[in-house]
Amino acid sequence: MPPMMNHSVLSQLAAVLEERKHAQPDSSYVAKLYHKGLDAILKKVGEEATETVMAAKDGDKEKIVYEVADLWFHTLVLLAQQNLHPDDVLNELARRFGMSGLVEKASRKD
Amino acid sequence: MPPMMNHSVLSQLAAVLEERKHAQPDSSYVAKLYHKGLDAILKKVGEEATETVMAAKDGDKEKIVYEVADLWFHTLVLLAQQNLHPDDVLNELARRFGMSGLVEKASRKD
Amino acid sequence: MPPMMNHSVLSQLAAVLEERKHAQPDSSYVAKLYHKGLDAILKKVGEEATETVMAAKDGDKEKIVYEVADLWFHTLVLLAQQNLHPDDVLNELARRFGMSGLVEKASRKD
Amino acid sequence: MPPMMNHSVLSQLAAVLEERKHAQPDSSYVAKLYHKGLDAILKKVGEEATETVMAAKDGDKEKIVYEVADLWFHTLVLLAQQNLHPDDVLNELARRFGMSGLVEKASRKD
Repeated sequence: MPPMMNHSVLSQLAAVLEERKHAQPDSSYVAKLYHKGLDAILKKVGEEATETVMAAKDGDKEKIVYEVADLWFHTLVLLAQQNLHPDDVLNELARRFGMSGLVEKASRKD
Repeated sequence: MPPMMNHSVLSQLAAVLEERKHAQPDSSYVAKLYHKGLDAILKKVGEEATETVMAAKDGDKEKIVYEVADLWFHTLVLLAQQNLHPDDVLNELARRFGMSGLVEKASRKD
Repeated sequence: MPPMMNHSVLSQLAAVLEERKHAQPDSSYVAKLYHKGLDAILKKVGEEATETVMAAKDGDKEKIVYEVADLWFHTLVLLAQQNLHPDDVLNELARRFGMSGLVEKASRKD
Repeated sequence: MPPMMNHSVLSQLAAVLEERKHAQPDSSYVAKLYHKGLDAILKKVGEEATETVMAAKDGDKEKIVYEVADLWFHTLVLLAQQNLHPDDVLNELARRFGMSGLVEKASRKD
């Protein structure tokens, strides 16, 4: 996806989300969401997860992409609201990936 | 996060997930998940969304990163299972981002 | 809870929900929800489950009761939309209860 | 559903759930769930909501009844763990029902 690489999508989005923390509540969707607070953000995370499940059950690939984008987006809002960065999540995934951590976790969990 | 950039985390993870589609069901957590099928993957997406919500309510930043990583990971498994790529989602986010599409969507939605 | 017994709450609610299937979409919240269709109902089920989780994490008993009522209510709408009755669910619970089926199921599931 | 009425299903189930609070963790599924604590119960509520959504998307009535039973059951465990009773929820529903409170709430919420 040139000229904007993956890296810049998440990082640029994080930068925008950081910036909107100081915006007027009615200036954008995200500013309103911050203003409503954590529960409103979490409600959206739950909602978009459900919509992802429904899109997948419909077997509608376009809708899956759309709903996963919604889900990732609202987790990015959550990260920003908690002063976290998508790199924290990507580092965690890289850590597991390098260490085969995912398999390890799975056996721990079940 | 040098030396592995964001971009490579998601893309490398996608490559691993692609590869494991052809692995024996009992060779890894992901191979087992593919073998169980779509419903098992979606169940995990729902589960990890709930755990993200709980971690955020606990105000535990480390747990939030861990659970969002779990949530993103299982959406990556879903994408792979559907022959989709994380770039599809990042392109969708970039498209919205360039077009202020998120605000537009929000007003459509409520 | 005299004079209205448990039994009548669910059954009377089911009767109301049945009746509203034939109402104008804009005549009530439920009529609108039926009109929007299954996905809209399921989205509410997912949403109210998330809100139940958040209320419980807050340790707010009044809110827990409120959100569980919302969750049960929207599952009743789902049942009605599918031409099912709360008695079907209660019969299933009674069946498990009489047979210690829940324990059995748990060991099957994990 | 004679001879066991709706009322007795929920109330008898509540009585069983109350009793199992004092049981050994390994004596039953519910005793184990109590022992794991609130997060484990909430995780099940989220999980069963997702499974209800999937069953409904499959249009499988038998599975819908089964999953709604699972969902209600785990909300009953939550209520018991919080020293609440299903009658609290049924009273709340009766209150709304008598007052057309659901319509009122809907307009408040959107």
